[in-house]
Amino acid sequence: MADLKFRIKAQRASDAKTIVKARNFEIIVDEPQSLGGTDLAPNPVEYVLAALAGCLNVTGCLIAKEMGFEIKDLQIDICGDLNPAKLFGQSDDDRAGYKGLEVRMTPVCNADEATLNEWMRRVESRCPVSDNLMNATPLKITLKTLQTA
Amino acid sequence: MADLKFRIKAQRASDAKTIVKARNFEIIVDEPQSLGGTDLAPNPVEYVLAALAGCLNVTGCLIAKEMGFEIKDLQIDICGDLNPAKLFGQSDDDRAGYKGLEVRMTPVCNADEATLNEWMRRVESRCPVSDNLMNATPLKITLKTLQTA
Repeated sequence: MADLKFRIKAQRASDAKTIVKARNFEIIVDEPQSLGGTDLAPNPVEYVLAALAGCLNVTGCLIAKEMGFEIKDLQIDICGDLNPAKLFGQSDDDRAGYKGLEVRMTPVCNADEATLNEWMRRVESRCPVSDNLMNATPLKITLKTLQTA
Repeated sequence: MADLKFRIKAQRASDAKTIVKARNFEIIVDEPQSLGGTDLAPNPVEYVLAALAGCLNVTGCLIAKEMGFEIKDLQIDICGDLNPAKLFGQSDDDRAGYKGLEVRMTPVCNADEATLNEWMRRVESRCPVSDNLMNATPLKITLKTLQTA
């Protein structure tokens, strides 16, 4: 299959708030007041969890169909711990991002346990967002400078 | 600093659509019709890019303040290529997620080039979402089964 290209354009609105355009959609990112924002929207690391949940649903339903059973309902709970010390320049002892993520998948379906375990294994392996989190993804950051007077 | 815990609860609305609750916020995730959805919201891999952009803004403004200059404006463009073949079970030749991400940061500020290059180096190292993408993040997925008749 041919590669798909995804892109966003983001514009700073304040030190903590960002307006992101993805196709015809607008995504607002902010921080709670405790992290320096105005608390008008989810924060960046919450969007990571939302992306993962959405991707697990898409991948889970697709693979259930392949395996011949139907997902009638699905709840996904995700949490993760993050030490903000590196972000705030106070310590390098912990990594900057989530140390790990705990995901609980609660599907309602009529598949037996062995089938569901195999389903879970395939979902984890083929979910794009899981892959980008579980495995290193290269970032190429370039800087375009606009000087002000 | 103490760890911060972030969490979401997600509910399947259809095979491609997911309703995510993060604190008091609702995030809708969908897919374009070409990927099996109803195109009511950004898709999971677009939310990954939005999360990264929001996090680079927060981290960038914080580190500029530390370094004694002010970000007057900041635009962030991010794109990435993804081969959907593994997701759709057609081939394992490419990884499931983004092969890599290209980020272009366009700050408007009065820092010189050497300062901005050092700024960029610190931002990349201390941005939580960059860290979770660039480096492996363990996922612990557990399955809670609800059988239907």
